[in-house]
Amino acid sequence: MSHNCFSKTPPSSFWKDSKYYVLDQLLLPEETKYIECSSPYDIIKIIKDMNLRGAPLIGAAASAGLALFFMDSKKTVQSDFEHMCGLLLKTRPTAVNLKNVLDEAMVLYKKEFAQKFDVLGRIFFDFSMKVHLRDAERNFIMGKKGADHIAGLFNGRKVSVLTHCNAGALATCGYGTALGVIRALNERGLVEHVYIDETRPYLQGARLTAFEMVCEKIQHTVITDSTAAWVLKNKKIDLVITGADRVALNGDLANKIGTYGLAINAKYHNIPFMSALPLETFDPAIESGNEIIIEERDDKELLFFNGKRIVHPETRGLHLGFDVVPAALIHSLITEKGILSDNITKEKILRLLNEK
Amino acid sequence: MSHNCFSKTPPSSFWKDSKYYVLDQLLLPEETKYIECSSPYDIIKIIKDMNLRGAPLIGAAASAGLALFFMDSKKTVQSDFEHMCGLLLKTRPTAVNLKNVLDEAMVLYKKEFAQKFDVLGRIFFDFSMKVHLRDAERNFIMGKKGADHIAGLFNGRKVSVLTHCNAGALATCGYGTALGVIRALNERGLVEHVYIDETRPYLQGARLTAFEMVCEKIQHTVITDSTAAWVLKNKKIDLVITGADRVALNGDLANKIGTYGLAINAKYHNIPFMSALPLETFDPAIESGNEIIIEERDDKELLFFNGKRIVHPETRGLHLGFDVVPAALIHSLITEKGILSDNITKEKILRLLNEK
Repeated sequence: MSHNCFSKTPPSSFWKDSKYYVLDQLLLPEETKYIECSSPYDIIKIIKDMNLRGAPLIGAAASAGLALFFMDSKKTVQSDFEHMCGLLLKTRPTAVNLKNVLDEAMVLYKKEFAQKFDVLGRIFFDFSMKVHLRDAERNFIMGKKGADHIAGLFNGRKVSVLTHCNAGALATCGYGTALGVIRALNERGLVEHVYIDETRPYLQGARLTAFEMVCEKIQHTVITDSTAAWVLKNKKIDLVITGADRVALNGDLANKIGTYGLAINAKYHNIPFMSALPLETFDPAIESGNEIIIEERDDKELLFFNGKRIVHPETRGLHLGFDVVPAALIHSLITEKGILSDNITKEKILRLLNEK
Repeated sequence: MSHNCFSKTPPSSFWKDSKYYVLDQLLLPEETKYIECSSPYDIIKIIKDMNLRGAPLIGAAASAGLALFFMDSKKTVQSDFEHMCGLLLKTRPTAVNLKNVLDEAMVLYKKEFAQKFDVLGRIFFDFSMKVHLRDAERNFIMGKKGADHIAGLFNGRKVSVLTHCNAGALATCGYGTALGVIRALNERGLVEHVYIDETRPYLQGARLTAFEMVCEKIQHTVITDSTAAWVLKNKKIDLVITGADRVALNGDLANKIGTYGLAINAKYHNIPFMSALPLETFDPAIESGNEIIIEERDDKELLFFNGKRIVHPETRGLHLGFDVVPAALIHSLITEKGILSDNITKEKILRLLNEK
């Protein structure tokens, strides 16, 4: 079954016949091909290799991995449940959604561990379905709230938006976070144009966000990441919106590398920088963005393109997966429970979290 | 002969046996291959196709084109001199060096037009040599002055630098402008590390600037353009330095797309943004950056990589060659005649230009 009933983009993943299928995002937009996963190790590999990405989807895929832990008919799994949670947690360090799903799974396991293996398989399959469906539902609600917020700010006129990376249906279990807000605006006829940072080195903007805009028939233009400042100055951009991978209690947020510089550029041009994220993206264990661990990835991902080396063999690269936007640069945080806007503080964040 | 006697990077171009050879910058760093030019049309093609790039080098190559206009033994040229100047001028609209060289050539032609064709060939060959050699010499002097300036600012300690695109030996007739300053600093042992924006879509930073740093054995790291903000915050960067393609009388400067956003980011982090450029880069006909024509190039250069389309066929891109940095964001302009620093004004610029 697909979790993507309210978006024209192909589902980022689905369950079928006790196997979990994941859209191979490295092949998009050229090919729409699914990777069959029948073991948690399959999930671990595709998260590490980035066939599957996006903070909410990584969390959801981990829940599928735990279901496969019990359902794996070939019994390839040589590990206990807790160890498997540890392996899944280590795949990507920056997004908090993964940790949250694994914590929730551990609570469930502690309650149900006395059950037979096949019963646990059913329980964790149901858990995985819940994780997927609630993520899509949250995004749908977040999209509506975000669209209300933006329509209010701009008196219901059409807006032009700039976005970075892919915070869409493909990064989540459906509809998307930042692109969910854009979808909801578009359903009301309020989107003029979407400018998309190509988002080096993985080109999630050029490959994935532009593909989602094609699916939704939203007018869009891809730019290099470094063209954003020129576009902010010259193309009547009303707002910048991205997703987030982890938000500290003071409102600092980690997101795809390049978001920090983009937020600085938005501030310089007096254009509001917004981020849309499910509440679970807040990490109550972290006071400020300085504590967020930034993943450093292999520099090959930066220095090679289509298998061809771009640079001299003696040249090294620095490839960070994420950077941190300080709260002072953020105009609004859009969540499924409500919007934080104008001077984001720890008090406001705690109030929102405690409303849960 | 090569004009590159004081840099370890291969010469960007040279004359041999009445032919002009141009280093094919699209093949670097993988291959060091020269394109043989025996007609001005060869020069026009390689400027348009960006086998050759860099504002000072484009101007110098145009002077070679005019020499070939008279020297072309196969008589392929079907045009008068003035028309040929017009064809050369149209190749790239943003850099001013090209226009300056062509204006200077026209003055020379008006003085010498009564000469025989083969004498004109000799006269314009000499003119071309003069253009090449004086560019390299200017860069060498600019490098020394820039290094003095920076050594003074940082009390003679080693500095870490971030640069964008390629303003090196490869962009000029030798030594480079921004990289000339880095070379001069390095000769004094004052370079700690050079961070290099890869510079999409042509990757002049990853392919060319990193290659020059390898040739000079300067420690360097390539980053994606959007990583610059993170590096400015976390890697103890002392200054940002780039070249320039055209500078207005108020100090606003055009340079490779991405320079504007980088300068905003430098300002946000209180890191001085500097640009090194020969005096001829000032355009006295232009009061402010708003008047600078920004070249829009084919979006294929952005949407394809190594012949492979990155995006969905329905997706369009916006590919600008340049953007404009307002004078307010510029800490210093480094020229061969001296440095403009701290509140750059039209008066200061005119004074420097009139010292010529």
